[in-house]
Amino acid sequence: MGPIRYLPALARVFALVALLAPVAHAQAQTDPLPSWNDGAAKQAIVTFVKDTTDRSSPKFVLPEARIATFDQDGTLWVERPMYAQVTYCLERVPALVKAKPELADVEPFKTVLSGNRQAMAELSMQDLEKILAATLTGMSVDEFNSQVKQWIETAKHPRWKRPYTELTYQPMQEVLQYFRASGYKTYIVTGGGQAFVRVYAERVYGIPPEQVVGTMGGTKFDYGKDGKPFLTKEPKLLLNDDHAGKVEGIYLMIGRRPYAAFGNSVGDQQMLEYTKAGDGARLSVLVLHDDATREYAYGPAQGLPDSKLGTFTQALYDQATMQGWTVISMKNDWKRIFAWEP
Amino acid sequence: MGPIRYLPALARVFALVALLAPVAHAQAQTDPLPSWNDGAAKQAIVTFVKDTTDRSSPKFVLPEARIATFDQDGTLWVERPMYAQVTYCLERVPALVKAKPELADVEPFKTVLSGNRQAMAELSMQDLEKILAATLTGMSVDEFNSQVKQWIETAKHPRWKRPYTELTYQPMQEVLQYFRASGYKTYIVTGGGQAFVRVYAERVYGIPPEQVVGTMGGTKFDYGKDGKPFLTKEPKLLLNDDHAGKVEGIYLMIGRRPYAAFGNSVGDQQMLEYTKAGDGARLSVLVLHDDATREYAYGPAQGLPDSKLGTFTQALYDQATMQGWTVISMKNDWKRIFAWEP
Repeated sequence: MGPIRYLPALARVFALVALLAPVAHAQAQTDPLPSWNDGAAKQAIVTFVKDTTDRSSPKFVLPEARIATFDQDGTLWVERPMYAQVTYCLERVPALVKAKPELADVEPFKTVLSGNRQAMAELSMQDLEKILAATLTGMSVDEFNSQVKQWIETAKHPRWKRPYTELTYQPMQEVLQYFRASGYKTYIVTGGGQAFVRVYAERVYGIPPEQVVGTMGGTKFDYGKDGKPFLTKEPKLLLNDDHAGKVEGIYLMIGRRPYAAFGNSVGDQQMLEYTKAGDGARLSVLVLHDDATREYAYGPAQGLPDSKLGTFTQALYDQATMQGWTVISMKNDWKRIFAWEP
Repeated sequence: MGPIRYLPALARVFALVALLAPVAHAQAQTDPLPSWNDGAAKQAIVTFVKDTTDRSSPKFVLPEARIATFDQDGTLWVERPMYAQVTYCLERVPALVKAKPELADVEPFKTVLSGNRQAMAELSMQDLEKILAATLTGMSVDEFNSQVKQWIETAKHPRWKRPYTELTYQPMQEVLQYFRASGYKTYIVTGGGQAFVRVYAERVYGIPPEQVVGTMGGTKFDYGKDGKPFLTKEPKLLLNDDHAGKVEGIYLMIGRRPYAAFGNSVGDQQMLEYTKAGDGARLSVLVLHDDATREYAYGPAQGLPDSKLGTFTQALYDQATMQGWTVISMKNDWKRIFAWEP
């Protein structure tokens, strides 16, 4: 069993952007989406929810079929300069080497230990996979959960110097709550590790572990010295929950087509297509990162070439227009980005 | 990709038992379990639910953590003389051969087409796997769902001449409802195909597709001629949800340890161990088939050798006693077996 590919879109993430400036926001009302400016995006979301929950509407959807799926990185929280989970893996390396001192002189662990950010940014995809496999597998499920829990409670984002869990987008938190208040089951469907996101999803998003769909690894059942059964995380990929894998993951974990799906990158394309292809009212939404001041700017609106920082490519933008998806401009549609902004 | 192993405990099922006799039952009360006789099993279930839902109890469990898992075959409905899904696969063969006439003279399809029950009962495990792979994979998810739906609505059990969906155990239906009314999420955790059981689980058990954990096969994403995306069921096993696989399936699909688990065979052993090994109140339950008159009798109470019809072995019975699991005697604990009994 070789190293796994947990985050295949990884390489392009190593651009250490660093811009700064939180901005004022507006007051809440009875409005279900108080952090949103009036506009086409907000209107599309509200109309969709009203249509599918009004019994007299031809687009009414039975409560048990109300499924809404949300990509995490870049859709619910900040994904720059690096996916939180990749940062976790890199920051786990010292503890890993302490437990296995023989790794100290072995690449790529040696480079990570050096703390040389430039060298780390130049690690190859293969090297990263080795780091992911070594830090995400080989321990019991309980050990893993407590390692992630400890990290997520203490680690800070390099730009805002705040825990990652405070870098969720307040307008999207409102969408999650609005959907749930309207009888929707909200799911995370992430290319990140399912086990990783589950550790904090309930606290941070109000989404329980069973509603987190992510990249899935195998586990091995065994008995401990106390005779009690436990599971060990194995370096065996069951499903790469990205691109077409997101649709397969939805089928596996949910078993029905979502009525609404939110994403922000080419990794979400198939999920948005699959959602939109269903009968009746269907909502497919892309978050466009066009706010370099308050968050980050990357994607077609910035005129960046597709292959560079192009998780949101021009082709994807064009497809959204053609197929009637909704595009959220962070700059124009969101009054504020984070809950803690004054 | 070779044929998959959907139902590994299959071989021992081919014993075409046929006994007959529905029996009278008693009246309902405000009792949450009216089809149960008073006794240790009913008492254990009621005490567990009360303890875990009473805020003043030291064994109180927060609503979001209330997970109860149920094996299907032999625990929620009849599994003799053959698993319903295996019967489905055999009965699909004529339609399969109609679509692919070249299979008519190929074994094991030829034997199944012959209708010779004796010859079918003697099919090898490998032959059965070929039949399962051919009838459960290779079609779109939508096609598969409509094939199963049609079958489950029309097929009849050889003994009772009723649809399989009328052969669920009324006392277990009451347990499902009682748990849900007490804030538990009820899950099926079956060695059978996840996709198969999902087709009818909501109608028959009130359990939505996303709460069916079963043996999981891979799917392939593609676009149809109309440009719309669809999934095809592939002959690729992701997880054999039986024995230790049930614990892995629970981890994958639910992500937390159940507080209660119900099973009836060695395939449920690890799930019951894992459930019981948790902190606080945990309920692990085995259904013992000791009622040859009203249903079937197989397992240790019948003094059958472990290896023959031993899905419920003497060793499992002993383990239940040692580890404080609850054993349900169908004969003594259930006033009636089926809802339609007079």
